[in-house]
Amino acid sequence: MKVLLLKLATPAAPLVDAIRALDPSIELLPYHADASDAELAQVEVALGWSLPVGVAPRLPRLAWVASVAAGVEKLLAPDLPPQVVVSRIVDPEQAVGIAQHVALMALRHVRGLPMYEAQQCERRWVREPIAAAHPRVAVLGAGAVGREIARVLDALGFAVRTWSRSSGGPLDEALAAADIVVCALPLTPATHAILDAHAFALMPRGGYVINVARGQHVVEADLIAAIRAGHLAGAALDVQAHEPLPADDPLWSVPGVVITPHIAAQSSTATIAAQFVDAVHRHRRGEPVPNRVDRALGY
Amino acid sequence: MKVLLLKLATPAAPLVDAIRALDPSIELLPYHADASDAELAQVEVALGWSLPVGVAPRLPRLAWVASVAAGVEKLLAPDLPPQVVVSRIVDPEQAVGIAQHVALMALRHVRGLPMYEAQQCERRWVREPIAAAHPRVAVLGAGAVGREIARVLDALGFAVRTWSRSSGGPLDEALAAADIVVCALPLTPATHAILDAHAFALMPRGGYVINVARGQHVVEADLIAAIRAGHLAGAALDVQAHEPLPADDPLWSVPGVVITPHIAAQSSTATIAAQFVDAVHRHRRGEPVPNRVDRALGY
Repeated sequence: MKVLLLKLATPAAPLVDAIRALDPSIELLPYHADASDAELAQVEVALGWSLPVGVAPRLPRLAWVASVAAGVEKLLAPDLPPQVVVSRIVDPEQAVGIAQHVALMALRHVRGLPMYEAQQCERRWVREPIAAAHPRVAVLGAGAVGREIARVLDALGFAVRTWSRSSGGPLDEALAAADIVVCALPLTPATHAILDAHAFALMPRGGYVINVARGQHVVEADLIAAIRAGHLAGAALDVQAHEPLPADDPLWSVPGVVITPHIAAQSSTATIAAQFVDAVHRHRRGEPVPNRVDRALGY
Repeated sequence: MKVLLLKLATPAAPLVDAIRALDPSIELLPYHADASDAELAQVEVALGWSLPVGVAPRLPRLAWVASVAAGVEKLLAPDLPPQVVVSRIVDPEQAVGIAQHVALMALRHVRGLPMYEAQQCERRWVREPIAAAHPRVAVLGAGAVGREIARVLDALGFAVRTWSRSSGGPLDEALAAADIVVCALPLTPATHAILDAHAFALMPRGGYVINVARGQHVVEADLIAAIRAGHLAGAALDVQAHEPLPADDPLWSVPGVVITPHIAAQSSTATIAAQFVDAVHRHRRGEPVPNRVDRALGY
């Protein structure tokens, strides 16, 4: 079976090696713009992180696009024929890692870690004891990741409410009652720019935003304005609209904003390879591919 | 009833007000060295954080010493007559707050937050994605606080083992199998300096220490040596042998050491006042005082 290896966000070699080790009969063909039509005509499956416009029309036998990530928005190219199946990684370990990242950023904020770090720099020992924190948290997104985040924050004693397009009531109400908003949504036309000036104005003064989904969920200029105006206390952004974040981006130096380079969690190469090879075997047997995306919904 | 108000670690006025508001019949007498013997002779109960040597012999009617904290080591003066009851605060909210602090410090360490903070300072966006962390943690102390810490770290996906004098097997084995050691022990002659050069040498290379109990549990010079030698990765010390930590203490500037000023958690004044007044009422009715300490064990 010929598999077209699309662009990844990380080096390709470890994934190629891991897939070959599991099933040498899977032939991986790295995509490049000057691949011949004859070569591409044999491709049934594409695997990767993003599918540029113009590639799908060159793949007449393409039946299935497999994402190496939980999110698939960069694979849903407008010229991808409607009958092509799209699947994604669903990895409990990835959800655990993201929940750990969110717990870290939420605790750092509510327990005043930056203030104590500043005291240590000045060798000042001033007790301002903090009671147990019970912030109200709205977790946007009720998939495997959002549910794991909610479970962990609940265990920490936080007052957690989960919101999604199909559950949790009106978004405006969830935002208005949230000291911390965590974004764990899929990126779709319905969620693009969902956290904008309107959303931030609804949040209580002193509110905090944690984004572990996609940079495009947040209107960054609006977030910066809400923080600079003193309405929001800050944000922890693991994802940004432009990645890698350019050195001259204003986000780097907004007081109260923590930038991390899209590391909240990533599935291990071993997990991605194992899930893909298993899916290939099912596909060969004529069985449905697991973790199939609803292309209309985008997740 | 006359209650001698001993030294507190925080201002006394809010506690005095809170107790008076709950029961004005409780007469609080702040201790000072020139209090008259006649005045002290009427004292049945002492409330506070520390009982200096020389005070108890001046209190012939003293029947009960109530701690405002979970730990009582500073009240167990050698000249406190053996029949005097000692009680302490047992506050689930305090345990939650301490567990939040421990979770924050453990996550900060295992998820590399300092590295990402340094990257942000330099406006560098370099992905080094972190898998979900599952460090082995030994929680020393199986009281209300230790159990809450264990529950929270377990919910984060950490591999938690609890050790106490009476359970959990040999301490050496627990230390040798711990990537992170959390100290939540009572301070007693048996636990004083329990984390010393021997203990640190048993821990695996790269180990991390979190102390939320008392500074005297840790031999600070040994800890500094183990970190400077590269054997331990660092420590988060919410308590230190000398509090307030003097500005010239070497602990302030050991790479990998986080100093916080004994703020992991403190019971609220309202909780302390309510637990004390309830205990006074039970004591008056001839009932046993709750949360009584085993003076031989020290907790």
